[in-house]
Amino acid sequence: MKKVKIALLGLGNVGRGVWKILNSNKEEIMKRSGYEVEVAKILVRDKNKERGFEVPKEILTTSFNDIIEDDSIKIVIEVIGGIEPAREYMLEAMKRKKHIVTANKMLLATGGDELFERADKEGVMFLYEASVAGGIPIINGINESLTANKVERLYGIVNGTTNYILTKMDQDGLDFNDVLKEAQEKGYAEADPTSDIEGYDSQYKLAILSSLAFGTKIRVQDVYREGITKIESIDIEYAKEFKKVIKLLAVVKDNYGSLDLRVHPTMISETHPLANVNDAFNAVLIRGNAVGDLMFYGKGAGDLPTGSAVVSDIVSILRNNIDIYNLNPVVKNNLWEKEFYDINEIDSKYYIRLTVEDKVGVLGEITSIFGDMNVSLRSVIQKGLEIKNENKVTLVLVTHICKEGNVRKALEKVAKLDSLYKINNLIRMEDFE
Amino acid sequence: MKKVKIALLGLGNVGRGVWKILNSNKEEIMKRSGYEVEVAKILVRDKNKERGFEVPKEILTTSFNDIIEDDSIKIVIEVIGGIEPAREYMLEAMKRKKHIVTANKMLLATGGDELFERADKEGVMFLYEASVAGGIPIINGINESLTANKVERLYGIVNGTTNYILTKMDQDGLDFNDVLKEAQEKGYAEADPTSDIEGYDSQYKLAILSSLAFGTKIRVQDVYREGITKIESIDIEYAKEFKKVIKLLAVVKDNYGSLDLRVHPTMISETHPLANVNDAFNAVLIRGNAVGDLMFYGKGAGDLPTGSAVVSDIVSILRNNIDIYNLNPVVKNNLWEKEFYDINEIDSKYYIRLTVEDKVGVLGEITSIFGDMNVSLRSVIQKGLEIKNENKVTLVLVTHICKEGNVRKALEKVAKLDSLYKINNLIRMEDFE
Ligand SMILES: NC(=O)c1ccc[n+]([C@@H]2O[C@H](COP(=O)([O-])OP(=O)(O)OC[C@H]3O[C@@H](n4cnc5c(N)ncnc54)[C@H](OP(=O)(O)O)[C@@H]3O)[C@@H](O)[C@H]2O)c1
Ligand SMILES: NC(=O)c1ccc[n+]([C@@H]2O[C@H](COP(=O)([O-])OP(=O)(O)OC[C@H]3O[C@@H](n4cnc5c(N)ncnc54)[C@H](OP(=O)(O)O)[C@@H]3O)[C@@H](O)[C@H]2O)c1
Repeated sequence: MKKVKIALLGLGNVGRGVWKILNSNKEEIMKRSGYEVEVAKILVRDKNKERGFEVPKEILTTSFNDIIEDDSIKIVIEVIGGIEPAREYMLEAMKRKKHIVTANKMLLATGGDELFERADKEGVMFLYEASVAGGIPIINGINESLTANKVERLYGIVNGTTNYILTKMDQDGLDFNDVLKEAQEKGYAEADPTSDIEGYDSQYKLAILSSLAFGTKIRVQDVYREGITKIESIDIEYAKEFKKVIKLLAVVKDNYGSLDLRVHPTMISETHPLANVNDAFNAVLIRGNAVGDLMFYGKGAGDLPTGSAVVSDIVSILRNNIDIYNLNPVVKNNLWEKEFYDINEIDSKYYIRLTVEDKVGVLGEITSIFGDMNVSLRSVIQKGLEIKNENKVTLVLVTHICKEGNVRKALEKVAKLDSLYKINNLIRMEDFE
Repeated sequence: MKKVKIALLGLGNVGRGVWKILNSNKEEIMKRSGYEVEVAKILVRDKNKERGFEVPKEILTTSFNDIIEDDSIKIVIEVIGGIEPAREYMLEAMKRKKHIVTANKMLLATGGDELFERADKEGVMFLYEASVAGGIPIINGINESLTANKVERLYGIVNGTTNYILTKMDQDGLDFNDVLKEAQEKGYAEADPTSDIEGYDSQYKLAILSSLAFGTKIRVQDVYREGITKIESIDIEYAKEFKKVIKLLAVVKDNYGSLDLRVHPTMISETHPLANVNDAFNAVLIRGNAVGDLMFYGKGAGDLPTGSAVVSDIVSILRNNIDIYNLNPVVKNNLWEKEFYDINEIDSKYYIRLTVEDKVGVLGEITSIFGDMNVSLRSVIQKGLEIKNENKVTLVLVTHICKEGNVRKALEKVAKLDSLYKINNLIRMEDFE
């Protein structure tokens, strides 16, 4: 049996998963890759930290030089996270002709170009299956299996924390803040949850996925982003009334070369396969012009699922015999040039919730503003949800397909009405057509 | 741009899909593979058949020799189907150092060994993504993405015809025979539907998938098989009462090295992701010891979805520069030795429907037979579904987990009771635990 030495940078959640899999599934990996994999070094900040599982002290190191200068180490696994020093370490390791596997979506989405170029220049492989949707092999799916297709659409539930929160709000009728607190206590949400709940994490992932699917470089700022913090129980109740559920959806649609890229809470039919993606599960649905709708579903985070993706990348490198160079997937160059939509230009249906004064004429005033802006309303609901003991009433509008810019202009006018108390929410509705 | 010539054997459903995709997505395929693909020859039985789409007459041929003797043809796509002449043609083409792509599940499941061995010997690639679940990249998923896992379970809805029939029976309350007739009229079922409705097609596919997932050669006869012809509306009604749906499930479970392989109608919870796989859609759920539950969902048949899988195999061959040999996936040899379960040895829950005489004591007689055989009953139902104007009553038993052999022995005794009219059905129930 051939042997190969690798090194891990980081031994947190993902590092632990990789370590455990390489040990417990040693035989599988040997038979499938042709190599016995030895973890020669692991970079950490604190060698003496209690880690709750067994790892030989002598392979832990706090010095990156120990790794970079060891020519017997052929593959470096970056699972530190963040921009620096992860970026610098990977660039250095590539210079030393080491292949790289990473799970770092933030770095890929914001500074991926530099890494791809360097990998190309040095002739090393650079793989990142774990960076999007944890254990789901979506990167490989796009790069290897959808090669015969023009991708037309991609819809993803790619953030486990927000999906857990929305599922709990839906199932237990709880409010956002209560569920967030519970999720933090249970370890499903970080102490600082901003990146998840404000949609940044999904934005990174959509930038990576759509770069691959459309063969064009997509920057984070090309993706419109809204988080889930404005979703209230009442919106979920209304969604139920419409036989819909609310998901934080990452969406990209190619309309004749213009890409409509966005991350926002979205109402979808409760019978659509994506509606049953619950708790911390993730899913990505891709529509290709040949294959039709294809969905990948699985665990988007966690030590072992994410480790599974990292180790599959290690096996891919080993199967290429670690000495064959220049086999990186197709992201590095633009295959196609694309335009990007401004959010005002997109077409969608909208759910709009307002609080208004409970008096004659308000409804007419508001609906005529939408009419003037060419926003045609499918339904206007004002039942059962009046705000008690106040002269206020909840109004829910659902539009037909229209331009978001027109909806926004209408809402600007509505905002100026004396009879308006609050524009509570605007949620886009998706029919997957 | 480099050019490559290929040939199609067959221009039926799948052949048409491949032809259409190679034309309509030419640019995508060129950019992703680095090659301009030219279909130099297409083998058919009848050159003059009206095909309903454009294909230049001069590339059609009825002589396989035209193809085999043309050294400029590097890849041969077998989409004739059946055993002969498909088998012989592929073996011949391999001898001439042509790479092969096939969609032929029947041949792979029954005579795959010979083809893999020959491909290996000749140093050509032999790919078959389209053979299972049409457009769903499940072969690549197992071979390339699950490499870090011990596969523990695999559950598949892999036959579109039966899933369409069961969906219609469920949604429209129709009887099996009526739906089958309708499906045949609409082209969703073949004139001779035996292979689909008796589960043979699923059996082939399970043999292929589990060979890959477990790295061991699995023959068709190792897979227990039952079709859907015995499912009646009343069973579907009872399933609904239990909040379950009935699916023709292909199942394999690895119990410490013994494989429990079977295809049969199965009751599953209506909230499980597989329960929402409706109409002609397919899905495969795999449980890996690292990744957890991973599901692939999409179109399992049809010209373009199946063509999409075939063309992705062509791209894989081209990316290997068509001259690098010996890169076939891992099926060819046993990586592990496995035992196989006899159906009597499996553990499951069961739904059993009986028609019995409506008289005092029958219930006790029957339940005590099951008790004697160590089959513990979870519920016994006898309500609302009496057979009108006769002294008969429907009895539905649901068991706890038990050995199938014991259930069968109990049913043999029940069959001998004077008070029994008929054992109508036995359906296994799956909790995915
Ligand atoms: N967690 C998931 O489920 C998941 C899923 C997909 C992708 N990812 C990505 O995977 C990466 C790692 O995530 P994680 O959850 O495993 O992070 P984590 O639990 O915070 O672990 C980070 C590890 O890196 C080490 N580290 C941090 N800074 C370092 C430095 N300057 N020098 C040396 N070592 C340093 C830490 O050392 P000490 O142990 O000594 O503190 C720790 O072992 C991130 O890019 C993340 O986005 C994570
Ligand atoms: N249909 C699907 O959705 C699907 C999905 C997955 C896999 N598959 C597999 O794909 C394969 C093809 O299926 P299909 O549905 O495309 O079959 P099909 O529609 O029956 O087409 C068969 C084609 O092969 C040609 N052919 C048959 N016997 C021949 C012979 N002896 N010599 C030369 N040509 C011959 C026929 O020629 P003529 O046109 O001249 O009659 C026809 O073009 C099968 O293995 C099937 O299991 C099919």
